[in-house]
Amino acid sequence: MGTDECVFCAIAQGEAEASLVYEDDTVLAFMDLQPVTPGHLLVVPRGHAIGLEDLDEEVGVKIWQVAHQLGRALRRSSLRCEGVNLFLADGEAAFQEVFHVHLHVFPRFAGDDFRLDAEWRVREREELDTTATAVRKGLSELVGQ
Amino acid sequence: MGTDECVFCAIAQGEAEASLVYEDDTVLAFMDLQPVTPGHLLVVPRGHAIGLEDLDEEVGVKIWQVAHQLGRALRRSSLRCEGVNLFLADGEAAFQEVFHVHLHVFPRFAGDDFRLDAEWRVREREELDTTATAVRKGLSELVGQ
Ligand SMILES: [Zn+2]
Ligand SMILES: [Zn+2]
Repeated sequence: MGTDECVFCAIAQGEAEASLVYEDDTVLAFMDLQPVTPGHLLVVPRGHAIGLEDLDEEVGVKIWQVAHQLGRALRRSSLRCEGVNLFLADGEAAFQEVFHVHLHVFPRFAGDDFRLDAEWRVREREELDTTATAVRKGLSELVGQ
Repeated sequence: MGTDECVFCAIAQGEAEASLVYEDDTVLAFMDLQPVTPGHLLVVPRGHAIGLEDLDEEVGVKIWQVAHQLGRALRRSSLRCEGVNLFLADGEAAFQEVFHVHLHVFPRFAGDDFRLDAEWRVREREELDTTATAVRKGLSELVGQ
């Protein structure tokens, strides 16, 4: 998808409607159209980036900083907020639906309907060590670029 | 829970076993004992903080920076990785289980068994605008502190 058709670019450029909570030169934050809970926010870079791979490191830091503040702001708001989740989906396999990178920030409370599921069995140390070695190798390839 | 009984503090101090992938003076990253998928990492501050509220802003930035790099490293590793999720649970209502703040970074692939569920209906603009106003008020209370 080109940036021409990107809904978050359109919001960033003031060409599509959004319920804005925060904006500066680098990032903006607005309400998710389909909230997990009332108060569900998206923090996005003003410039188009698809995901973690093409996201500028310093812009990423700004996204985090705004999300950190918004998480704390939710707890001070009149909205029901007993906890906060941050969630980022990088890639279709990770449930990304809009291909302009965004960090979800949403309030949680007892009895809300957000659910996670996976097969969470404890793994052997040997298996974890082998996996750690594989990740470190990936990291060294990244740093060596 | 005091830091005496905190398993992530124990890992940070070299007093508990972990499959480390990264460490510096501020943060460390190691394999989750009960991975969603192979390669599931936790990025934690070396010093104890419970969640977003007591996490130092600059330490939070370091956590994000390491998570950003690790997400990109997973895609370069030999592990199956077609996408990446970042997830942070702040508070018991948000599914936090270890009360030393941690950012999850895990690979995703078609057919893995991670699932999310919520009641994702589209909300009216008026409702979203009202919610945005409530969040902005929370933000102004935070900034005014
Ligand atoms: Zn865009
Ligand atoms: Zn701790």
